[in-house]
Amino acid sequence: MDFSYDDRTLAMKNSLQSFLDDDIFPAEHILDEQLAATPDEWGTRPIVRDLQTTARERGLWNLFLTGEGGAGLTNLQYAPLAELTGWSMRLAPAATNCMAPDSGNIDLLQAYATEEQKWRWLAPLLDASIRSSFCMTEPDVASSDATQIATRIRREGDEYVISGRKWWATGAMNPEAELFIVMGKSDVDAPRHRQQSMVLVGRDTPGVTIVRPLTVFGYDDRDHGGHAEILFDDARVPASNLLGGEGEGFAMAQARLGPGRIHHCMRALGMAEHALALVRGRALGRETFGVRLADQGVIREWAAEARIQIESLRLLVLKTAWLMDTVGNRQAMTEIQAIKIAVPRAVQQILDHAVQVFGAAGLGPDHPLASLLAGARALRLADGPDEVHLAALGKAELKGKK
Amino acid sequence: MDFSYDDRTLAMKNSLQSFLDDDIFPAEHILDEQLAATPDEWGTRPIVRDLQTTARERGLWNLFLTGEGGAGLTNLQYAPLAELTGWSMRLAPAATNCMAPDSGNIDLLQAYATEEQKWRWLAPLLDASIRSSFCMTEPDVASSDATQIATRIRREGDEYVISGRKWWATGAMNPEAELFIVMGKSDVDAPRHRQQSMVLVGRDTPGVTIVRPLTVFGYDDRDHGGHAEILFDDARVPASNLLGGEGEGFAMAQARLGPGRIHHCMRALGMAEHALALVRGRALGRETFGVRLADQGVIREWAAEARIQIESLRLLVLKTAWLMDTVGNRQAMTEIQAIKIAVPRAVQQILDHAVQVFGAAGLGPDHPLASLLAGARALRLADGPDEVHLAALGKAELKGKK
Amino acid sequence: MDFSYDDRTLAMKNSLQSFLDDDIFPAEHILDEQLAATPDEWGTRPIVRDLQTTARERGLWNLFLTGEGGAGLTNLQYAPLAELTGWSMRLAPAATNCMAPDSGNIDLLQAYATEEQKWRWLAPLLDASIRSSFCMTEPDVASSDATQIATRIRREGDEYVISGRKWWATGAMNPEAELFIVMGKSDVDAPRHRQQSMVLVGRDTPGVTIVRPLTVFGYDDRDHGGHAEILFDDARVPASNLLGGEGEGFAMAQARLGPGRIHHCMRALGMAEHALALVRGRALGRETFGVRLADQGVIREWAAEARIQIESLRLLVLKTAWLMDTVGNRQAMTEIQAIKIAVPRAVQQILDHAVQVFGAAGLGPDHPLASLLAGARALRLADGPDEVHLAALGKAELKGKK
Amino acid sequence: MDFSYDDRTLAMKNSLQSFLDDDIFPAEHILDEQLAATPDEWGTRPIVRDLQTTARERGLWNLFLTGEGGAGLTNLQYAPLAELTGWSMRLAPAATNCMAPDSGNIDLLQAYATEEQKWRWLAPLLDASIRSSFCMTEPDVASSDATQIATRIRREGDEYVISGRKWWATGAMNPEAELFIVMGKSDVDAPRHRQQSMVLVGRDTPGVTIVRPLTVFGYDDRDHGGHAEILFDDARVPASNLLGGEGEGFAMAQARLGPGRIHHCMRALGMAEHALALVRGRALGRETFGVRLADQGVIREWAAEARIQIESLRLLVLKTAWLMDTVGNRQAMTEIQAIKIAVPRAVQQILDHAVQVFGAAGLGPDHPLASLLAGARALRLADGPDEVHLAALGKAELKGKK
Repeated sequence: MDFSYDDRTLAMKNSLQSFLDDDIFPAEHILDEQLAATPDEWGTRPIVRDLQTTARERGLWNLFLTGEGGAGLTNLQYAPLAELTGWSMRLAPAATNCMAPDSGNIDLLQAYATEEQKWRWLAPLLDASIRSSFCMTEPDVASSDATQIATRIRREGDEYVISGRKWWATGAMNPEAELFIVMGKSDVDAPRHRQQSMVLVGRDTPGVTIVRPLTVFGYDDRDHGGHAEILFDDARVPASNLLGGEGEGFAMAQARLGPGRIHHCMRALGMAEHALALVRGRALGRETFGVRLADQGVIREWAAEARIQIESLRLLVLKTAWLMDTVGNRQAMTEIQAIKIAVPRAVQQILDHAVQVFGAAGLGPDHPLASLLAGARALRLADGPDEVHLAALGKAELKGKK
Repeated sequence: MDFSYDDRTLAMKNSLQSFLDDDIFPAEHILDEQLAATPDEWGTRPIVRDLQTTARERGLWNLFLTGEGGAGLTNLQYAPLAELTGWSMRLAPAATNCMAPDSGNIDLLQAYATEEQKWRWLAPLLDASIRSSFCMTEPDVASSDATQIATRIRREGDEYVISGRKWWATGAMNPEAELFIVMGKSDVDAPRHRQQSMVLVGRDTPGVTIVRPLTVFGYDDRDHGGHAEILFDDARVPASNLLGGEGEGFAMAQARLGPGRIHHCMRALGMAEHALALVRGRALGRETFGVRLADQGVIREWAAEARIQIESLRLLVLKTAWLMDTVGNRQAMTEIQAIKIAVPRAVQQILDHAVQVFGAAGLGPDHPLASLLAGARALRLADGPDEVHLAALGKAELKGKK
Repeated sequence: MDFSYDDRTLAMKNSLQSFLDDDIFPAEHILDEQLAATPDEWGTRPIVRDLQTTARERGLWNLFLTGEGGAGLTNLQYAPLAELTGWSMRLAPAATNCMAPDSGNIDLLQAYATEEQKWRWLAPLLDASIRSSFCMTEPDVASSDATQIATRIRREGDEYVISGRKWWATGAMNPEAELFIVMGKSDVDAPRHRQQSMVLVGRDTPGVTIVRPLTVFGYDDRDHGGHAEILFDDARVPASNLLGGEGEGFAMAQARLGPGRIHHCMRALGMAEHALALVRGRALGRETFGVRLADQGVIREWAAEARIQIESLRLLVLKTAWLMDTVGNRQAMTEIQAIKIAVPRAVQQILDHAVQVFGAAGLGPDHPLASLLAGARALRLADGPDEVHLAALGKAELKGKK
Repeated sequence: MDFSYDDRTLAMKNSLQSFLDDDIFPAEHILDEQLAATPDEWGTRPIVRDLQTTARERGLWNLFLTGEGGAGLTNLQYAPLAELTGWSMRLAPAATNCMAPDSGNIDLLQAYATEEQKWRWLAPLLDASIRSSFCMTEPDVASSDATQIATRIRREGDEYVISGRKWWATGAMNPEAELFIVMGKSDVDAPRHRQQSMVLVGRDTPGVTIVRPLTVFGYDDRDHGGHAEILFDDARVPASNLLGGEGEGFAMAQARLGPGRIHHCMRALGMAEHALALVRGRALGRETFGVRLADQGVIREWAAEARIQIESLRLLVLKTAWLMDTVGNRQAMTEIQAIKIAVPRAVQQILDHAVQVFGAAGLGPDHPLASLLAGARALRLADGPDEVHLAALGKAELKGKK
């Protein structure tokens, strides 16, 4: 359980830090301008393309990808890099092609896709020439309980026919999102966790309708492809578009979510550090009633609490990464649940305090705090509400499993 | 300290409830349609006008106004009505002409305006033929500390010349907002709380520029006039536009804020009751892992905690209203501070739990929860961050002042 | 819902305040000396007797008793008096004969006892010539669930035979506690809430063994009769010692607990005010690192939060009392549950902060804080753990029952 | 930053676990009996002596001592051992001679004592043939601010004369505590942190009076020597009893407290694990209202939260130990402050929930929970109230120091 950074990690961390300082932070206002110039478009903005080019040149590409085709880092090595990308949530993950949900989809395809599927979808994703979305959540059922999924995937001849309604398909508003990985039930009579399958559905498949974009709080998250409601009305795909085997959908989803959760947590720590840096600047530069904010007891208390939370949770994230690297995602289940619950809410609290330090400015568009707060809040529901994980973790704990 | 509803209150409460059921709730989707049809406009939508007509016919107009020209209710009588309007934050306050910031501005004008000022501004505000904004917060200073205000109001001949930058001027994006009440310093050499004055500035005054709209957690709050940044660049108004006397700005602002705070709290309780009603519906209609949400321990705990908070804080709000009615706003200072701190954060917590019960749907546009949560969060900063009030309340408590 | 103090309440409140100032507070060190002089005895100390004499002379006797034989106050009238007694938990309730569990036992006897039972037990209790204990909790079952009670009360001829083990029988270590009201099952085949009965058992009944005193944290609570474990080993009492009817035990217990809970809450508010007064004195008189405690942000915040909690919860207690007076204990169930949950934990938090302000002194014997904190903590379990009440309250809320 | 257990640690951990299972846990009831047999004595009980003999035989002696004379472990190696001793706070630390305050005093003496002082005091402490106490806290000043210390140490010829009043001298009620290390001011005109000195004062020194024992939430903590108030009334010791140099008292105190704090935290984690194990047993064996506690949502939530807290804070404790081992106590200041704040309060919360699961039994003498809760609560004040550390940590954070 050695959490020290090895030489390669240190080198990449320095390189990534330079990339942030030299290219990404200065690009944020360019992104704003490009978004403002074409307010109705959902596609990837030119500045992101430019940064992607630079990232590739700097060797900062597909950092999350533990196996071939990526940077080949362990989760433990990736952790500090992912955290750094959390300092610029709008640009850094996209620039390094480490952005959800594409990163999770890439993991899935690398693990389960056929050679043909890889050629068709994985290769362009690794190259960022297309984007993708993951279609799991449904409006009409509690999707944290996969047995309730209502979307149906039925075999007809050499095709699968998909019918159902999905929403919160992140990234799907981007027209470059050519691939939808759709989870549905292929056999409702099979055992509970063998009923689900996944199919690869092209954006242009007849029967696929992008119904509308959704907002998180008031944000449409246009800068990373938004969140779509999608109707699948007897959409037909070749049988060869099945991902993995029939009935393996639940297991594949579980396998996909573990890394996804830890990546969210790593980035969230970067969000928190960023917020704390902003607070520091504000608290040193403002005063109320004759006392500098940095000298006020309550604000000092908040800063101390933030530091304590970040330090302890970062270690837990690192331990989780180390467990995933050494004993596998399944054996790291308890820790993945723990960080999935603990990190987003701690970061939400840190951001909430940061907003309070910034006053009304903290609610608005001039600082990233409100947007980050909305994102951290959403993480408490992403991949299932925290309470589902708390219940599972508590159940295991009371059985004496450890 | 009798909190029972008297006959008049009960009658108006029933009347308002009918108005909500018959007219306002059904109108919400019409508002959505009208907003969608003209996405770039900031003006009052036709449906609001229609509801205002109905409200007047039903005798539900200017309910907040304790003195002449309004419904003539006490704060205690108004409390349950304001709470009811919190069930439809987008329509009910506007329909009954009880919407912030106009309600506070009307209070101010009624108390301090000259006859001419009343004729020019108060009459149309009472009639809802114009709207108004209150320009206090500034981007460059901690505006909770009124002594830091940077906007200058200088006398030149028979004019006042205003220069400064204001933001979070709620309602000001609405072109019907013809009146801006601007707080600034008219004499920086006067004692700390005698430096400030207020002037009435017409929207069309040369030198007044609406710089941009602001967002609260991504929401532009277009349905009630948004929040503007406004530049006053040597804007000139006749000397007769001074509200009250020179140097009385601070005292008038304090006087304005007391009622404003309690109105926010009353409506926030309605928001919480509304959220709880939504939770009830959801919890009875959904299940996860074979157990109905309403039968799950954690959700029951949330509902119980919400009920406890609402019941105890409603009583504190009523006591505050009763004190304002009987001994005056100044003597109710402790209680006003207490509810200003306690109600928004309790309601924020109730809404946060409600979002969690709704899952991803709670974050999005199909339910009012995310929008209400953003609004409750913003209340913790409106009229000064909670911490300023906590410090003042604690200071008084430790002096033994009760 | 009028919470103003009427003339009688005001007069009694003033009278009780004088009694506290003149007699009770000065008597606290005498109690300490008398306890130190006879460390192994459990009986009522002479100073308590003296104060009881004074209380009777001052007309401050049996204040809690709403019906005949007592002061004849409503719950609403009693509330501020009970709160005042919370300023001296060791002496004031005992001095005024308003001490748990005797007060609850008196209520029970007055409602359900036969004339003979009243003559034998109620009269001396009203007179404080004896004391009593209530034997409900059992070591082997979760006693919040009355259907689990293991003590058996069986009829044999004209006797009842009681066998079972009880503990946390408050007051029972005092040899003057001549009466034990014992809850047990008389018919295990009856419907769930008709199985229980109560019998009156004299301390000297053969088969009754005081097993040992218990401690709450490290306190033996010797000053009010301690808490006993009691073994009933085929203890026989005349059939006429049945209280109420067979099978009515559960209903009687419920009836007893409502007033008991609100009395606890009223006194707890007095504990909190007392703590806050102590904090005020400490904070004004000490400094650390050059800043007076009263001027430190975190301590101001605690004081403000305490004031907010006390003000809002006091109102909820008053509303509960008013409901009990006007519509009855049953109809006040939601509110009784709410205060039972909310008041002790708020007071625990206030006391916890007060201890922190006092530093190590707050943990020890020189201030009442640690002892009060232990008492407030115990209230979260008395009459059932909070979670049982939270679950019931939440269940009702989610049914839409209001 | 490698937190894996090395071979030596693993071997000692196994050995210590066997000692606990074989000897210590079975001895707890013997301690109870011995305490009950001689309720008025403060000395070390025979069973502790017996266990000490066994510990020495097993090579489990002075485990905490990093340097010569002890087990020679690093802090990182000691951490899991100290945690294990937290499973039996009454016996394990004493049995292994790792008990506060002797362990801290031993550290001090080893670092600063002269050869003669070592021979006289350190040798018997290492051997457990005497015990010791640390006299820092004073009743009349906020002792977390060392500049306020009122005790005076004045040089007269070849003697130091000590006058002052100390309390919370842990262990000092034990007559075997032959050594008091007393902190006082030797030069009030020196710079703020150079005014303090420490002297070694024998228990039998004329002028030393043990005034009284103190209680922590009613516990006299007799099993580890209690907490004494001590009066030093011109107590005279030879000048050679000065520890370190004049004016070095503050620096020595700081040096002493770092390891003391981390040891408290390590043991506190063991207390939490112990509590959780007790909860597990209770939750599996009880039911209320027909549902096993282990299947109730709220209790699962508590168990999950406990696991999350323990896992994340243990890692932070290990990191702190590793920093102390590698870069020194001074460089680990931030982390020591962080765990000092975070661990006791988390453990307090875990114990509070555990008490709630146990119901009234959790408050009493049959389970260690109430006693552990009192101990954890006291830790939030030991070595200075948390708020002092929070303020310092927050101040550093807002300076950008990291």
